[in-house]
Amino acid sequence: MGTETTAREPLGDTTAQRRPGRPRSEKVEQAILDATLEALTERGIEGVSLEDVAVRAGVGKSTLYRRWSGKEDLLIAAFGSLKRPLPGPAGESVQADLTAMLASMAADADDPRYACQFEILNGESERFPKLIDRYKNEVAEPRREAIRDVIRRGMTTGEVRPDADVEIALLALMGSVLSRDRQDVRPPAREFAERAVAQILSGIAAK
Amino acid sequence: MGTETTAREPLGDTTAQRRPGRPRSEKVEQAILDATLEALTERGIEGVSLEDVAVRAGVGKSTLYRRWSGKEDLLIAAFGSLKRPLPGPAGESVQADLTAMLASMAADADDPRYACQFEILNGESERFPKLIDRYKNEVAEPRREAIRDVIRRGMTTGEVRPDADVEIALLALMGSVLSRDRQDVRPPAREFAERAVAQILSGIAAK
Repeated sequence: MGTETTAREPLGDTTAQRRPGRPRSEKVEQAILDATLEALTERGIEGVSLEDVAVRAGVGKSTLYRRWSGKEDLLIAAFGSLKRPLPGPAGESVQADLTAMLASMAADADDPRYACQFEILNGESERFPKLIDRYKNEVAEPRREAIRDVIRRGMTTGEVRPDADVEIALLALMGSVLSRDRQDVRPPAREFAERAVAQILSGIAAK
Repeated sequence: MGTETTAREPLGDTTAQRRPGRPRSEKVEQAILDATLEALTERGIEGVSLEDVAVRAGVGKSTLYRRWSGKEDLLIAAFGSLKRPLPGPAGESVQADLTAMLASMAADADDPRYACQFEILNGESERFPKLIDRYKNEVAEPRREAIRDVIRRGMTTGEVRPDADVEIALLALMGSVLSRDRQDVRPPAREFAERAVAQILSGIAAK
């Protein structure tokens, strides 16, 4: 689902490209997640109900409960579905892998639905601390760890300084995407990712 | 007030330290801005009214109108008051100036009132686009420009590579603060700023 970070597929759902039409269960799941996002946008976290989502998705409530144990699980899955799986590291270079990851994250942030959900999630974080914690642990943290893995790999291959500060590098990489998202005029996702990764690698100080 | 970015003072309001007690007009202004933030937290952007703020601050409505032309001006001033003026560049080195600026920004973000207002502002951005635009132009942009100025100065002094990408450096610097703010365990503001600026200057690539 949207929360995987280690899949070897490139951007997008290659399952859908391999086969003429996705299996029914996958279509149903996507319909439910889309209905959840629609309900969220209209009614906020508190206003989402499983009954309403089932009606919007055209499925029975039992179909929802077979997949998710309750509203919180459903919301986590819906938020996660707004992020493409991060492209798995191709392994040719740290620069290329980080660039692909940042380009994917920046492209997600360009989806207006994503921006809207993100605001809902942030705006209601005080009222739903457990949901936010789960989001951080189940959606955000695995993605951060995938980026750390690439940086650490660079230390073993000699591409990254052995004394580099991995957490600070992570903040600069992910933070660049967040800051870009707040600009009215944004460089295209791929171009932004290339420039950001190149400069976080090289630094801006004169040598 | 809080929106100045070029003042030569260090962190905090040195006016208050120089004199035994601030002038009455400044105290009144601060009381009004505090009352506005209190009303915002309780009632959201839509719920704030000048009548209510005047009562909370213990002043007449005419006192508000003498300073701000309406609710939008008052909200912009209140949001701006949550940020310390960025420390003006001491000019000794780009690294020291950027570190002082990032430390100030990170310390602002550690104020729980700031985090809360920030969520209000973000969570309601779709409903109040003009307010958000003004916030960006009048509060956020002057601060960004102050950081760009320091980076550009480094290009003339030879501290920063002449081909450095100023906008991308700005995204990495400000974005690092945003990302830090989303971590449950944060390095202290000053330590974070030192590590982040040092690494954005040096880069993480092996030389």
